[in-house]
Amino acid sequence: MGITSPAGEDRHGGGEPAEPMPFKFVAWGGSADVSFWHRLADFKLDTQKLTEEPVNISGFFAPCNQPHAPSYLQLMMESLPPDPGVNDGPIEVPYNRNRLPVPGTLHNTNTVETYNALDKPALLRSAADKIWDDIKSGRAEEDCSLLSRFLVVSYADLKKWTFTYRFAFPGLRMSPQATAASCQPACDFFTKDEAAGVLAACTEWRALPSGASLTSFLLNITPDAKVKAQSLKEWHDAQHEGGKVILAFYDPSNLPANPGWPLRNLLALASVRWGVTRLQVLCYRENRSGLLDLEHSPVLDIILPETPEWKEPVGWELTARGGKGSKFVDLGQSMDPVKLAESAADLNLKLMRWRLLPSLDLPRMASTKCLLLGAGTLGCQVARTLMAWGVRHITLLDYGRVALSNPLRQSLFTHEDSLNNGKVKAEAAAENLKRIFPGVNATGVQMSIPMPGHPVSSNEEAGVLNDIQRMKELVDEHDVVFLLTDTRESRWLPTLLCADANKVAINAALGFDTYLVMRHGASPLLDSDSTSDEAKSRLGCYFCNDVVAPLDSTANRTLDQQCTVTRPGLAPIAAALAVELAVALLHHPLGVLAPADQGTSLTDNTEHPLGIMPHQVRGFIAHYGQLVVTGQAFDKCTACSSTVVNEFRERGSDFVLEVLNRPNYLEDLTGLTELLAATDEGGDLVWDDELEDTDL
Amino acid sequence: MGITSPAGEDRHGGGEPAEPMPFKFVAWGGSADVSFWHRLADFKLDTQKLTEEPVNISGFFAPCNQPHAPSYLQLMMESLPPDPGVNDGPIEVPYNRNRLPVPGTLHNTNTVETYNALDKPALLRSAADKIWDDIKSGRAEEDCSLLSRFLVVSYADLKKWTFTYRFAFPGLRMSPQATAASCQPACDFFTKDEAAGVLAACTEWRALPSGASLTSFLLNITPDAKVKAQSLKEWHDAQHEGGKVILAFYDPSNLPANPGWPLRNLLALASVRWGVTRLQVLCYRENRSGLLDLEHSPVLDIILPETPEWKEPVGWELTARGGKGSKFVDLGQSMDPVKLAESAADLNLKLMRWRLLPSLDLPRMASTKCLLLGAGTLGCQVARTLMAWGVRHITLLDYGRVALSNPLRQSLFTHEDSLNNGKVKAEAAAENLKRIFPGVNATGVQMSIPMPGHPVSSNEEAGVLNDIQRMKELVDEHDVVFLLTDTRESRWLPTLLCADANKVAINAALGFDTYLVMRHGASPLLDSDSTSDEAKSRLGCYFCNDVVAPLDSTANRTLDQQCTVTRPGLAPIAAALAVELAVALLHHPLGVLAPADQGTSLTDNTEHPLGIMPHQVRGFIAHYGQLVVTGQAFDKCTACSSTVVNEFRERGSDFVLEVLNRPNYLEDLTGLTELLAATDEGGDLVWDDELEDTDL
Repeated sequence: MGITSPAGEDRHGGGEPAEPMPFKFVAWGGSADVSFWHRLADFKLDTQKLTEEPVNISGFFAPCNQPHAPSYLQLMMESLPPDPGVNDGPIEVPYNRNRLPVPGTLHNTNTVETYNALDKPALLRSAADKIWDDIKSGRAEEDCSLLSRFLVVSYADLKKWTFTYRFAFPGLRMSPQATAASCQPACDFFTKDEAAGVLAACTEWRALPSGASLTSFLLNITPDAKVKAQSLKEWHDAQHEGGKVILAFYDPSNLPANPGWPLRNLLALASVRWGVTRLQVLCYRENRSGLLDLEHSPVLDIILPETPEWKEPVGWELTARGGKGSKFVDLGQSMDPVKLAESAADLNLKLMRWRLLPSLDLPRMASTKCLLLGAGTLGCQVARTLMAWGVRHITLLDYGRVALSNPLRQSLFTHEDSLNNGKVKAEAAAENLKRIFPGVNATGVQMSIPMPGHPVSSNEEAGVLNDIQRMKELVDEHDVVFLLTDTRESRWLPTLLCADANKVAINAALGFDTYLVMRHGASPLLDSDSTSDEAKSRLGCYFCNDVVAPLDSTANRTLDQQCTVTRPGLAPIAAALAVELAVALLHHPLGVLAPADQGTSLTDNTEHPLGIMPHQVRGFIAHYGQLVVTGQAFDKCTACSSTVVNEFRERGSDFVLEVLNRPNYLEDLTGLTELLAATDEGGDLVWDDELEDTDL
Repeated sequence: MGITSPAGEDRHGGGEPAEPMPFKFVAWGGSADVSFWHRLADFKLDTQKLTEEPVNISGFFAPCNQPHAPSYLQLMMESLPPDPGVNDGPIEVPYNRNRLPVPGTLHNTNTVETYNALDKPALLRSAADKIWDDIKSGRAEEDCSLLSRFLVVSYADLKKWTFTYRFAFPGLRMSPQATAASCQPACDFFTKDEAAGVLAACTEWRALPSGASLTSFLLNITPDAKVKAQSLKEWHDAQHEGGKVILAFYDPSNLPANPGWPLRNLLALASVRWGVTRLQVLCYRENRSGLLDLEHSPVLDIILPETPEWKEPVGWELTARGGKGSKFVDLGQSMDPVKLAESAADLNLKLMRWRLLPSLDLPRMASTKCLLLGAGTLGCQVARTLMAWGVRHITLLDYGRVALSNPLRQSLFTHEDSLNNGKVKAEAAAENLKRIFPGVNATGVQMSIPMPGHPVSSNEEAGVLNDIQRMKELVDEHDVVFLLTDTRESRWLPTLLCADANKVAINAALGFDTYLVMRHGASPLLDSDSTSDEAKSRLGCYFCNDVVAPLDSTANRTLDQQCTVTRPGLAPIAAALAVELAVALLHHPLGVLAPADQGTSLTDNTEHPLGIMPHQVRGFIAHYGQLVVTGQAFDKCTACSSTVVNEFRERGSDFVLEVLNRPNYLEDLTGLTELLAATDEGGDLVWDDELEDTDL
């Protein structure tokens, strides 16, 4: 990012000329730090989105403070405006004496093609026109930073984290050029007394709180060598005070005989606004103490043409080799890979908000804690899809180890995970989620879910009580529970716990070529006042269609019942639908209480951008079809009825233990036994055998 | 697998008794080699499936041929019957002199519970009853291997490759027990002359081709010391020849004073069938040369009770420690992990054939070569689902590298793959497929697909011609082509190539919340005679609804158009449906010519077990719904019409090059230009904008 000169001007200035001679302005250099690009990325994704409208930005600079290098115009995080809503008052650009703001305009394009097609001369001309306006209107005398107005054009490739950009510092060109009758260090130009006065006046001026807009000023030296610093707008008045009036500007240049680029437009102001043809200019540079460096700050005695013509402005920054090209920065190479992955992860989601889903609540996604019961075919795919939706907190629960046949259908495992008796499934799944996206907070819990019909012997009792307690804590700690296990009875306790804690429960189950995805209704024990209508038509759970309590279905299962015997395409579909349903529910204003929508015409627009909010989706892959179904809660349900939930609230783990041990207890408790006895051996009741669980 | 004695019998035999004393039979040992378990696994999956019917098997043995160890009854690959259809003639068990077959029965259960619940005494009794029948009917004299009939009970856990099993050798128990008046080595029992004759006769007998069923025999020693070996059925005749008749049997035992288990049932035969109470028995054992070992083969002088009672048979093999338990073998630990993965992979699929999908053509799946164009969101998921369906040959084509945002949605990549500018996508996808399933034949091809609207400069021409040729070769080499790229125009050349080569083309495309999965129709240039009806109602391709040729849609795409902006659940669903559709098509007798089924009632059974055969499936996730749509081929289609395919056949790559370079060429060629001009600026034509491609 070295300094380069615009075409036709040379950075090598002459010494002090014997005759007035044209002098050269040192081209200004722009520099954008990493924080600027990060902020630009956010700004593009969150605020600017699809628009290519120019953005007002600020560059920051300070007078050159060393003889070896010029000072750049810097872009940093603060250069871009804050997010809307962050600060409702007028935007104040933070500055200090080392960061004097200069107004600029950013043209950030959506595509590299648009970037390349930008009409750069026109942009420069337009910026120069603004400077002319500010000069002519007097605004530039009030705020002389307007004279240094700059441009940045850029294309941000946020997939790769690369940025292509170019600065322009519009310079007004007069013809014939200004010449310098002399150029000498301030220490030589001023008398000793004057120098002391100038130093003091400059120091005072530089300390002004509004110094940001006072980067050029007047030094009014009275005949008795008193010096005062004044605003540019005092020029005419100062002329009448009888002293010597010297123009000064904070000069980014470090070269002994060449003023920096800002002087160009300042001379235009002097010529056009003040009508002067001769003036002395102090190129204010500092030493390390922040005081005027009399030795390294030249004073030029400048002669301006009386009636200059104004040529096409110049000012596009050249490359380090003096060419006309863009600069390029690849932050992807230097960023922390994990951070990079996180920003990449957000990218797709933020893009969804641009056009298609402005209401997408990404913070909600990121803060939602999901508990996945089962890390098999469904669990793996649900976890993946949740991560893609921006969910960052995922707990997987499974008792098993990765079997040899798993990796082909369970998308978080590799062959290696299945060797040597297999890794613990829940842990391997969590590890592999992190391998996909290091920013995820994934945990694996190896435990089995206590199940009705699996009686507990007395020496197992302590362990099972512990498991019940742990299950309850896990459900309480999470916001959404996915039921993705391989048996009906393993869904009973989680269903009850979700009904008790009023958690969102999403259930997915596979048949050979059919699938069921559903959400459970809310807790039966919600305050009936506040939810009156919903409570009365509460939606059912997975067990609401059953007229028998869940029993041990794993004993005596043949090989095909122990293994995944479903068409391989089913699990990805059911898992995807389960997540889409959960995401839609999380965006629904009523959440778990959202009433069930019925299916509507497929080509209709839906009320919510994420679609209808069904209760159950049943899929039939042999027909490539899906049905939206609604089922109300059953008041004798063995899992979610108020009888069962109340009993659990009263008796806790003891109740659960009794359910595990006593086969007919749930049916007796809920009144199912009576119902069955009353209905002619149950012949009239509808059984829900359509979707028989297999090993998921 | 040491020899153990049945309860109440001791392996330590006595010496030569002074008085007749009971002697003990050495219990037989069974041994199953690894090849038997592998064959059992196949047999269970492919032939036996769900049935638990007993299976006739063969054990193999030979006389003991060393003094230090007995010979086992061995099970090996050949013990189980061949697959039905492999050999239509009568099943012949392969045998040789060292593998004499013995008939057995295998009871292989589906579950460990059934295994444990087997009524072992009843099984043994039933097998003993068969032996009784064979003795009484005389069959055992014809084929004395029937006397050694054995049992195996087993439970094969094919998920873990572990086998639990137990042998039984039913032994008929007489009471009072047989006693031996003497027991001496054959070399002592026989005179020198007799011994020479016995040796010669045994050697001849042992060489008989039907030796398998002659494991017991008679040695008829004439008074002049001539010896002939005879079948058991000659017993009574032999008695009248005036010589000495000695019973001989191939003895697995190695102990000097204890005959092997087969003698038990042979004595029962002698007692019941021949009515003898005294007989000499040669326990035929061999030396390393395969000749009678006179020194180590004892001759027992046996006294049988006159009217024995018959007690409950014995014979369940005991464990090495003498307990009553099962043996257990864990092949999962010792198998080649890759082989193990392959067998595990087949397991799920074979299980599908058991109950649900007997027509599943696994060899067809394994031999189908699939070409996936695009290794992104759709490509990764299609590849996974294909592998789960048993497809073993997958080629992925993609030009890109793994970007940081990819792993979250593209299920074959991890974060690591995206670092350092990203791995080549096609190659990383192929590698990771192998990591999931080492048995897959996966290849990654990095290339870009030549696309209409992307003109080719003269210095690119050679490369593009090469790409066209390579694309053609790739399509020709594969059976099914999946179109999963991220632009409309990249699907044009593959569509044309598939139409030319009459390949199955499956197309999947995503919108924000909608998806399209379709199969293309057959080639327009198929012999019209043979396909008359189909040809007339040929199904359309992806471009058949378009009235403009594909153009460059990638130029000037904004960030959201370059990235995956679809609901994350869409790609898994569309990819799964694409594979299910392809698998159903591969099973359809008409293949690519299969007519399009319309949607039917979701609860109806479908004609084919894999369901209906639609042309297009359109999904609307906001409605959780899918539509089955049919579209006929368009005779002015820019990709699959006979005009275009014919032009390609005539001009090949030159034609394609012209398409890439000349924007309106395809429209002119097909007559679309004229059509558009004729139809009032195209206002009446239906446009298919519903599914706008985004970056997949």
